[in-house]
Amino acid sequence: MDNLTRQDIENEFRALQDAICTGLEELDGEGKFHQDLWEREEGGGGRTRVIQGKIIEKGGVNFSAVHGPLPSSISSALKIEAEEFYATGVSIVLHPKNPHVPIIHMNVRYFETSDGGYWFGGGIDVTPHYIYEEDARFFHGLLKEAGDKWHPEYYKAHKKWADDYFYIQHRKETRGIGGIFFDRLSDQDGMKKEDRFGYVKDVGNTFLPAYKELVERNVNKPYSDNEVEWQMHRRGRYVEFNLVWDKGTKFGLHTNGRIESILMSMPPLAQWSYNYQVKPNSPEEKTLGLLKKDIDWLSTT
Amino acid sequence: MDNLTRQDIENEFRALQDAICTGLEELDGEGKFHQDLWEREEGGGGRTRVIQGKIIEKGGVNFSAVHGPLPSSISSALKIEAEEFYATGVSIVLHPKNPHVPIIHMNVRYFETSDGGYWFGGGIDVTPHYIYEEDARFFHGLLKEAGDKWHPEYYKAHKKWADDYFYIQHRKETRGIGGIFFDRLSDQDGMKKEDRFGYVKDVGNTFLPAYKELVERNVNKPYSDNEVEWQMHRRGRYVEFNLVWDKGTKFGLHTNGRIESILMSMPPLAQWSYNYQVKPNSPEEKTLGLLKKDIDWLSTT
Repeated sequence: MDNLTRQDIENEFRALQDAICTGLEELDGEGKFHQDLWEREEGGGGRTRVIQGKIIEKGGVNFSAVHGPLPSSISSALKIEAEEFYATGVSIVLHPKNPHVPIIHMNVRYFETSDGGYWFGGGIDVTPHYIYEEDARFFHGLLKEAGDKWHPEYYKAHKKWADDYFYIQHRKETRGIGGIFFDRLSDQDGMKKEDRFGYVKDVGNTFLPAYKELVERNVNKPYSDNEVEWQMHRRGRYVEFNLVWDKGTKFGLHTNGRIESILMSMPPLAQWSYNYQVKPNSPEEKTLGLLKKDIDWLSTT
Repeated sequence: MDNLTRQDIENEFRALQDAICTGLEELDGEGKFHQDLWEREEGGGGRTRVIQGKIIEKGGVNFSAVHGPLPSSISSALKIEAEEFYATGVSIVLHPKNPHVPIIHMNVRYFETSDGGYWFGGGIDVTPHYIYEEDARFFHGLLKEAGDKWHPEYYKAHKKWADDYFYIQHRKETRGIGGIFFDRLSDQDGMKKEDRFGYVKDVGNTFLPAYKELVERNVNKPYSDNEVEWQMHRRGRYVEFNLVWDKGTKFGLHTNGRIESILMSMPPLAQWSYNYQVKPNSPEEKTLGLLKKDIDWLSTT
């Protein structure tokens, strides 16, 4: 593993996509992934996989590996000078049917430039329509475990990064209970490439057990029309975040990416009402009150 | 009228909001506008009016008049240097229930700076879920009439501006059949302020007869679940345009505007499906084929 190549990383990401799709089909029990293979004119391509199931109302698990001349939009945005780039990653968003099951997002990615630069990025975050603190504690516990294996500061730093990144600025609320987010992890502080990748793989491998548990804990809870209406409004916020603030989405839309793969993150159905208000002392009000940065979910009781 | 003041303009805009709200309540027959008055900390405020009716599923008619120190975000975006600004306008978006009735948007606005600069902006455009060429011809005919009264080039120039502005770049499609759009109309070419305002008022006054006719032509058409599903997907595109490309919306969301007034443009319910496809030779396919720039709607037969 001394010479970890982009091909090694790409192979692992493909295998990760496969394992997650198999696991999600098992979890859903009914839905099957439909795959679209696509190619990028300038080089590379991807496997976009989407599912509509019993538990997962709409979900996508994308793999891509693209390369070619570095577009000037990327070089100026990322402040790098190189002629060619290579990027590979796995990207997931799942919108469940039951409002008590959370939306989940995961992304792991690797970027390399022809001048020898490279870095990893990624993250995983959960957007419950209804926040259950014990679920948040469980989820953040898994992320801390994954981080602690590789660096004592990973969880703390990347949890904060997620709070700042998954933030709907115009609503002054977080997208959900956060998780972890990181970018440009390279050879800073003498960190080894294989150790960076070890962390990234562990983040990827956390996805399935995390979501399985969150589904199993909540999927049999009954739900009312009112709770579905609240879910539709929370999905509206998800749309707002993704289209207004998410750097990856904005970047893809402005640089002629594969639109259907980028926008597979959109919910199946979303709702907006003017000045939508929650009832005092309701579970909806409780959830709104917890959409804040810097909550230490590991210590909630 | 030689000394057209901002107060004159503001008064006319208030009256325009009143007239439009009265006319829309009559047209809808059931819905009544609910008004929220709001104040801006730095100066001024507005009257946000929203309606949920029988014909209009969700609509908003906003008036605002705000002033104060010019935020650096505005001065740099607009490349102007002045200490204070004043802005007033009326802004409308209506989402009808029947998919055969189009979505409509209208905006008129006036901007003034403390160094004596001023300009008008605005526009009106229609987004049919199903395009009927005869409706497009009627609508563009009214706009041409309004423009021709004031300048022989207005309609042609501002129709093109609308095609370019109301364009969903990542989908490579126009938002609808366009209309007119204009900005920074000031004293260029010796144009008089009162004539600019005359045009802007005529645009504002075109709104009600235009929408009345478009509603009356289409509101009694029966519609199926499939047509509603198509409508929900077109609304999804409306969301994409407003959150990703609309300069006014983006500006408001990034500068701490009144969020509920800005996002009153959002549809009540919108839908996204992965890679949604229309049937060959269907009315939906016909509509998609007409979402192009530079169609001369006045000459369609």
